Amino acid sequence: MKKKAILAYSGGLDTSYCAVYLSRELGLEVHTVIVNSGGFSPAELAAIEQRAYELGSVQHEVIDVTQRFYRDCLRYLLFGNVLKNDTYPLSVSAERMFQSLAIAEYARQHKADYIVHGSTGAGNDQVRFDVAFAVIAPDTEIIAPIRDKKLSRQAEIKYLQENGFEMSWEKARYSINVGIWGTSVGGVETLTSHLPLPDSAYPSQPTATEAQQIEITFEQGEPRALNGETMDPVALIQRLNALGASYAIGRDTHVGDTILGIKGRVGFEAPAALLLIKAHHLLEKHTCSRWQLLHKDNLANWYGTLLHEAQYLDPVMRDMEAFLASSQARVSGKVSVRLQPYRFDLLGVVSPYDLMQSKAATYGETNDAWDARDAQGFIKIFGNQLKIHASLQDGNV
Amino acid sequence: MKKKAILAYSGGLDTSYCAVYLSRELGLEVHTVIVNSGGFSPAELAAIEQRAYELGSVQHEVIDVTQRFYRDCLRYLLFGNVLKNDTYPLSVSAERMFQSLAIAEYARQHKADYIVHGSTGAGNDQVRFDVAFAVIAPDTEIIAPIRDKKLSRQAEIKYLQENGFEMSWEKARYSINVGIWGTSVGGVETLTSHLPLPDSAYPSQPTATEAQQIEITFEQGEPRALNGETMDPVALIQRLNALGASYAIGRDTHVGDTILGIKGRVGFEAPAALLLIKAHHLLEKHTCSRWQLLHKDNLANWYGTLLHEAQYLDPVMRDMEAFLASSQARVSGKVSVRLQPYRFDLLGVVSPYDLMQSKAATYGETNDAWDARDAQGFIKIFGNQLKIHASLQDGNV
Amino acid sequence: MKKKAILAYSGGLDTSYCAVYLSRELGLEVHTVIVNSGGFSPAELAAIEQRAYELGSVQHEVIDVTQRFYRDCLRYLLFGNVLKNDTYPLSVSAERMFQSLAIAEYARQHKADYIVHGSTGAGNDQVRFDVAFAVIAPDTEIIAPIRDKKLSRQAEIKYLQENGFEMSWEKARYSINVGIWGTSVGGVETLTSHLPLPDSAYPSQPTATEAQQIEITFEQGEPRALNGETMDPVALIQRLNALGASYAIGRDTHVGDTILGIKGRVGFEAPAALLLIKAHHLLEKHTCSRWQLLHKDNLANWYGTLLHEAQYLDPVMRDMEAFLASSQARVSGKVSVRLQPYRFDLLGVVSPYDLMQSKAATYGETNDAWDARDAQGFIKIFGNQLKIHASLQDGNV
Amino acid sequence: MKKKAILAYSGGLDTSYCAVYLSRELGLEVHTVIVNSGGFSPAELAAIEQRAYELGSVQHEVIDVTQRFYRDCLRYLLFGNVLKNDTYPLSVSAERMFQSLAIAEYARQHKADYIVHGSTGAGNDQVRFDVAFAVIAPDTEIIAPIRDKKLSRQAEIKYLQENGFEMSWEKARYSINVGIWGTSVGGVETLTSHLPLPDSAYPSQPTATEAQQIEITFEQGEPRALNGETMDPVALIQRLNALGASYAIGRDTHVGDTILGIKGRVGFEAPAALLLIKAHHLLEKHTCSRWQLLHKDNLANWYGTLLHEAQYLDPVMRDMEAFLASSQARVSGKVSVRLQPYRFDLLGVVSPYDLMQSKAATYGETNDAWDARDAQGFIKIFGNQLKIHASLQDGNV
Repeated sequence: MKKKAILAYSGGLDTSYCAVYLSRELGLEVHTVIVNSGGFSPAELAAIEQRAYELGSVQHEVIDVTQRFYRDCLRYLLFGNVLKNDTYPLSVSAERMFQSLAIAEYARQHKADYIVHGSTGAGNDQVRFDVAFAVIAPDTEIIAPIRDKKLSRQAEIKYLQENGFEMSWEKARYSINVGIWGTSVGGVETLTSHLPLPDSAYPSQPTATEAQQIEITFEQGEPRALNGETMDPVALIQRLNALGASYAIGRDTHVGDTILGIKGRVGFEAPAALLLIKAHHLLEKHTCSRWQLLHKDNLANWYGTLLHEAQYLDPVMRDMEAFLASSQARVSGKVSVRLQPYRFDLLGVVSPYDLMQSKAATYGETNDAWDARDAQGFIKIFGNQLKIHASLQDGNV
Repeated sequence: MKKKAILAYSGGLDTSYCAVYLSRELGLEVHTVIVNSGGFSPAELAAIEQRAYELGSVQHEVIDVTQRFYRDCLRYLLFGNVLKNDTYPLSVSAERMFQSLAIAEYARQHKADYIVHGSTGAGNDQVRFDVAFAVIAPDTEIIAPIRDKKLSRQAEIKYLQENGFEMSWEKARYSINVGIWGTSVGGVETLTSHLPLPDSAYPSQPTATEAQQIEITFEQGEPRALNGETMDPVALIQRLNALGASYAIGRDTHVGDTILGIKGRVGFEAPAALLLIKAHHLLEKHTCSRWQLLHKDNLANWYGTLLHEAQYLDPVMRDMEAFLASSQARVSGKVSVRLQPYRFDLLGVVSPYDLMQSKAATYGETNDAWDARDAQGFIKIFGNQLKIHASLQDGNV
Repeated sequence: MKKKAILAYSGGLDTSYCAVYLSRELGLEVHTVIVNSGGFSPAELAAIEQRAYELGSVQHEVIDVTQRFYRDCLRYLLFGNVLKNDTYPLSVSAERMFQSLAIAEYARQHKADYIVHGSTGAGNDQVRFDVAFAVIAPDTEIIAPIRDKKLSRQAEIKYLQENGFEMSWEKARYSINVGIWGTSVGGVETLTSHLPLPDSAYPSQPTATEAQQIEITFEQGEPRALNGETMDPVALIQRLNALGASYAIGRDTHVGDTILGIKGRVGFEAPAALLLIKAHHLLEKHTCSRWQLLHKDNLANWYGTLLHEAQYLDPVMRDMEAFLASSQARVSGKVSVRLQPYRFDLLGVVSPYDLMQSKAATYGETNDAWDARDAQGFIKIFGNQLKIHASLQDGNV
Repeated sequence: MKKKAILAYSGGLDTSYCAVYLSRELGLEVHTVIVNSGGFSPAELAAIEQRAYELGSVQHEVIDVTQRFYRDCLRYLLFGNVLKNDTYPLSVSAERMFQSLAIAEYARQHKADYIVHGSTGAGNDQVRFDVAFAVIAPDTEIIAPIRDKKLSRQAEIKYLQENGFEMSWEKARYSINVGIWGTSVGGVETLTSHLPLPDSAYPSQPTATEAQQIEITFEQGEPRALNGETMDPVALIQRLNALGASYAIGRDTHVGDTILGIKGRVGFEAPAALLLIKAHHLLEKHTCSRWQLLHKDNLANWYGTLLHEAQYLDPVMRDMEAFLASSQARVSGKVSVRLQPYRFDLLGVVSPYDLMQSKAATYGETNDAWDARDAQGFIKIFGNQLKIHASLQDGNV
């Protein structure tokens, strides 16, 4: 009986090569799996499925993890206003982790003998796949043919042709990864440090020209309504992606550290992620305490870093999620945002928990919460340690 | 003999009232001092001086601290990419601290009996003044007539008129504070949480319409040249302020915690601060190690917070400055930026210390620094703790 | 009708003075309340009650918050291994906060007109009382007669005598505060920086001379059994306090920052706190991940600091508690400890979640989890950034 | 011409095997190098040298890095009060790093073709060696025969005997590593989680029985005198080691995370490290500001962690050192310590920069720095955010 290999199949050249290689060279029964975390359309999924069967998959599965991805990950990235290096919403990093988990669980459930990914040996994705596989399906052997064999595109295409697969494998000028939390764009420019991506590198171009004002409603940190219309957070994100993309909002270039110790650069367009994070952050500034804001920042920076570095399964991530979820107790209200081509402005918030709008006191205005004498006393004691420190300038003589 | 009072004089209604009040009611010899940290033009300073003498100042001093402000403060804010709550470059917070220090030192040097500021009891500035005065000139008594007497504008104007000063004290629609690190704008909207400032609230309006590319050269974290022209950092900041303002770049609204525990909201326009911080940060992403970036972020967030909260004289600030200065050893190179109305894009960097451009390895590309077997070994051990943790799911049975 | 004052009554001279002063001078109806957070014996409480009524209290209440104190506070201090400045378990700081909260809630519930404490104006306790009162019972006015009137002990005693109260108010050589999380000791030595407290300053002296081995069982971070005998955590703490005190275990001197910006020094004996924290910490080293240990440390340090500084009601404390509670999921097992006069040794742990005892790998020993080639690959990639950094020593030439 | 191999030689079985193996099997010219960072006596070094030459070393070098080790590392561990997991002074971790650096520099200087260490593939040391070698001597190939060949002790002894080396290689019951910052002890017990090391496992036993008081003088954080006698810090550490060992002070067991993701356990005796760190920390509590203490803790924890994990060459370590050095500006004074068998007590400090002894204010005592009214005002404003937060309990209705 043939041994069973679960292949993480994307429809691209590398994993198509793997599919054929696994069955023809290694004699394995190939099951293909694609995980949709919100980036694929039904048509795309159907085309991928057809190709999988053409290449000899005995069973093709589409696992949809979009809701889970939101609930177990994106939600926390939003609670933490996570932008890696103050820029990148971890569009691909987060998604790839959840795809890896889903495939690993599928392999364990279906008692696979092998679990296969098509990553090279030079990037982060191999780490996410290998780690998830080894932790969740420790008895299943990992195969990574592209990493091991270091084949060129040409060699892969030739091999497929020799095996009777005459598909078209035109190399796109830009390598694009579409996901619900952002689309990444790599190209010849992102291999340099000095060249920007041209506008044409992005998969869609702006169509909207008029400014437009929108209102996002958050409940305990989660987006629940757009312009007053209640909807599922996932649907809301997708709606915002479409709307934001029509303005080319959320484009930028990320430069950062990979798990392998080298630096990498990638362009991205993440309209919903940027709009939601910035709107959410503004609401937090009104509703969270000073201490919450200070500690959230540091913890969320780490949460994003560890997620990026394939540490999602470390128990500390659950601890940080507990902190972040707790911090959202009062992050409820409406945020107004004005969209314009290539940019957006946060206009303001309305929240029942707005610490700025209490009757107690208004900044800079005369108020009844304290008087001049109180302020004097406050500052006197507030400055105590600085005064003592200064008084010992030359030692206690 | 009359006792000597040093008055921090700004030329505005509050401190003009103080000048008269101090000499007529308290019988003090009033010396007026204004500290220029880069926000005043010669014409403005001359007008303020004239008014000071009209109001009875026996001695008016202009203390210029711009270079010192850059060297002892702005430089570190740049090293730390400090944006309070991810938004505000601390334009006023930083400046007021340095004005307070300069006045306190002047008072001590001139053996003043009293040191006087015109702040109310409801804001941050009183804390900065009182703390700096008490630490640096501990034997000089502080007077804050506006805080103590809670006078209305009308009452102040009436008092001045009764004393023969018929100046024009039209209340501007927006309260503006111009500084080298940014101009703040307060108005009726910033007292709410939901209303944005209108464009007209800003003191200048954009004139440039065409995109323009500029290049900023940093040496060890400090800006040293603009478009290849070497210049003093202070001059460079002022040049960037003018250029950026012509595009209305660097406008935003800050919501944050005051030292007094309440939240405040303020608009600002800080073209140079925003352009420099973002350009500098990009250069750091290329030249600093992963560990530097992680630790800088947290430390700089605290540096900004403590500066904002009048803790500049705490010795921990010197320790953080030592860290930040050390971290800049290799933050040298050129950053290209494209300016457009209301926004700018970072295009890329060139640096001899660019960790992304080493011959050793290129992200995502086949390379000679390691092979597939190395990557496999790396990931195996990298995932050790996660695997052990998962293996004990139900305890070690 | 007389107005109602709730007095936080301890039975000591200061609050006894307050009781009489409030009724005789201010004409208030005095209700006395004492909060027991585990430090008072029934006999002590009875004596205090009797004195309260003698002094004219119309109603005396004992509020026992011991279980709540454990559940809402001590538990988290243990989860966080909190020792302020690496020394002090916050014995008094934590207790006073919970006493303040209970009194404030009582006052609000009983619609008191005034709420009264006997703290001076020079210490931390006034802050804990005032803050708790103002937050929880914002409509009740605070009176602090000792702070306001700055009376000497002699004056207080004289006043009581003149009012017919001839109690004995011998001043103890050392000021002692007995609590479930530790006993504090202040005296003439703790006002200096260089003199240690003599052994005789501590309220009890060691009686045990032979070493003794004990075993503490933790479940999800909470102490659940002593020497195999299951018991309530509060009972276990009290048992450990008695046992540890018989060895004079847990004595030390704390030097730290007060909320008022000055430094203070205090002796303490906290046998249960020290034994539990150190045993718990050891168990965590075996059962928590590297990332949990790193992040717990920093967060717990802040948790202790903010608790100490009267910030218990800040919502960030709930967020930190959520993190800490989550981190305890696997902190279960037994810890062996050897007690000896004045010291103890941690002998070892047994836990089903011991990450050191997995079958996967043993440190320093040959193992099957990875081989030499894996290790080589790991280290090669692990050192990537350092190598790249070093290769750019003189820039990328 | 033979190729040149630099062997990190310790005199033990593993590296003795390497010496012979490299020359006989690989035909290399073997140069042996031993790095003394303070743990070897002249007699031990002479014995090792003799053995090296017997085994065929063509050149044996002793590199003494003790002063450098203190200046570039131990000093900062002391400034940071670094105890890994609150227990372990990083005795071996730190030392091994500096030995690796010295050997790598020697190899580069002497244009070695190979650089050889005797570590296994299961521990931390291989990482320290490999990383230091690869970063400092990137063109020299690393050989690690013990790691690669996984030989047993028996096989190594047999090989040496077959090659004519009839040395005695009795296996000690405990594996001991003597260093200036502590002696580590491993044995059959440390492979378990529950067994303590017996007293007899430690290389020396206590001889002192009477308590003894000592005084350590620090200048800017560095130990400069013992009992009033000025001496070099290295000499002082060695003196304290001898004195402390006579009391068996500084023994404990460390459980921690290795670089390889597994947990390890090791006993140690580090009298000087523990005495100096605890005395230094006490002095800091008196002389550093609250903010310094808070930030030092977190940074120093990371400094120790990164040093432990072979990241000494990361530039962030220099940044942290700059912070730590700056923080010591006023950490000067005398600390009194009482030594007793197996334990010590910190008695107190005298320092011209003692923030507790300023004339300004004394904790808990009536003072002139502020009055009751000031305290009231302070607390009122200090509690502002908590009050506002509580007032919005049910939203702003």
